Amino acid sequence: MKKIGILGGLAWPATIEYYKAICQLSQNHHANLNLPGPSPMPEMCIESVNINYSYNRRGSFGDEHSWRDYDAYFHAALKRLEDNGVDFAIIASNTPHNRFDSITNGLNMPVLSIFEAVAKTCQINRIDEFLLLGTEPTMNSGIFPDYLKRHGISAFVPSDDTVKSKVADLISELFKGKSENGRSRMDQIVRSSYEQMEIKPKVVCLACTELPLVFEGKEQLETFEVNGVLYLNTTIIHAVATFRYAIEV
Amino acid sequence: MKKIGILGGLAWPATIEYYKAICQLSQNHHANLNLPGPSPMPEMCIESVNINYSYNRRGSFGDEHSWRDYDAYFHAALKRLEDNGVDFAIIASNTPHNRFDSITNGLNMPVLSIFEAVAKTCQINRIDEFLLLGTEPTMNSGIFPDYLKRHGISAFVPSDDTVKSKVADLISELFKGKSENGRSRMDQIVRSSYEQMEIKPKVVCLACTELPLVFEGKEQLETFEVNGVLYLNTTIIHAVATFRYAIEV
Repeated sequence: MKKIGILGGLAWPATIEYYKAICQLSQNHHANLNLPGPSPMPEMCIESVNINYSYNRRGSFGDEHSWRDYDAYFHAALKRLEDNGVDFAIIASNTPHNRFDSITNGLNMPVLSIFEAVAKTCQINRIDEFLLLGTEPTMNSGIFPDYLKRHGISAFVPSDDTVKSKVADLISELFKGKSENGRSRMDQIVRSSYEQMEIKPKVVCLACTELPLVFEGKEQLETFEVNGVLYLNTTIIHAVATFRYAIEV
Repeated sequence: MKKIGILGGLAWPATIEYYKAICQLSQNHHANLNLPGPSPMPEMCIESVNINYSYNRRGSFGDEHSWRDYDAYFHAALKRLEDNGVDFAIIASNTPHNRFDSITNGLNMPVLSIFEAVAKTCQINRIDEFLLLGTEPTMNSGIFPDYLKRHGISAFVPSDDTVKSKVADLISELFKGKSENGRSRMDQIVRSSYEQMEIKPKVVCLACTELPLVFEGKEQLETFEVNGVLYLNTTIIHAVATFRYAIEV
């Protein structure tokens, strides 16, 4: 198995879900081989950064220079993973993917993008439209929707700022590992967003790796249905793509 | 905060508990500072190794040469953490601590020992005797009991091989992240061990970092009481010592 590099801590609860998913996938993969001892695991190096540092160095889209310190912090962490000897890496969070090209520029190892993993999952499941929920940069930069559009997928974000700030509040709680009534708040966010579109809720992409944590018991599923809405769990979609790549010859 | 190196994957469920504990301790530590953005976190590098590889390279105590590959695998992982730039490291597992000196020999960074953290906790809580449960090497090598004896603490292990193998069975399930009826099996192990000693159960040291997982809801506590027995959770004792060292000036 290839050695996996994970840029984590963005935030820590999602890093746990990624790590758990990869380890459980490896257990399942080796379950019938009857090897002596505990299940073989891919070697991993997790570089867990200080999310407070990066958060306070977010720039403004359209002002390339304003992202310099943000990009440099993540690039240096990925460079340490490369120096560690990992065969490839992932960034365990959606938000930095808005700066993916600048962050990964100059690295010699592959970095598997979460945006690409989500687009592939949509194509396999014939999903061509969804509501996109995530952090402020992910919902407002237009970068993920543009990427998806090139793959034939329409993503729309809540048009109402009140709804957007409800998403942000929920995420800031989940960054601490838990939320109060997260599930019903999510329901409300989804319903309000679709009401504005005057269409019925169908597919919601949880494009912040902490958002799936509001659905207790479903955190480790790539996709799941609740009240007739199909949710895409970007965390596990990305983790599954990571493990598959690690075992590819 | 100092950058923390963690040698993990031994097994993965305990690595999650360590990481979670350190992140939650950092949240609590910064809770009243009202800093902008998510809580500051210590930077960490987790080198998660393949437990199947190390398990199959365990040697025999008394035969120094037989441990060569086992020691070298862990030493190399710690060296990568040192090269990464961590300020100090921990090995997130009791078992490799039976080979602590050989594994850490030649490193330039401090490595905080779990045995030392447990001994300190016992001294603070005036605990001078306990039942020690752990993997086969930890229960049979006599290394941890000898270390404790030098700190005025008597540790005894189950004298019956049937009881020892029940501990081993429980651990091998917990390595996969869950156990069937773990709690009642633990109760039985503790009662049988004390019966053989003809004394009443008092203090049990869970000296395998997965064992605390049988006590759902208590995995993040350093010590906890169940049915009149005080349990020492070596995982969290070690994680707390790690975070304290990381914030020490």
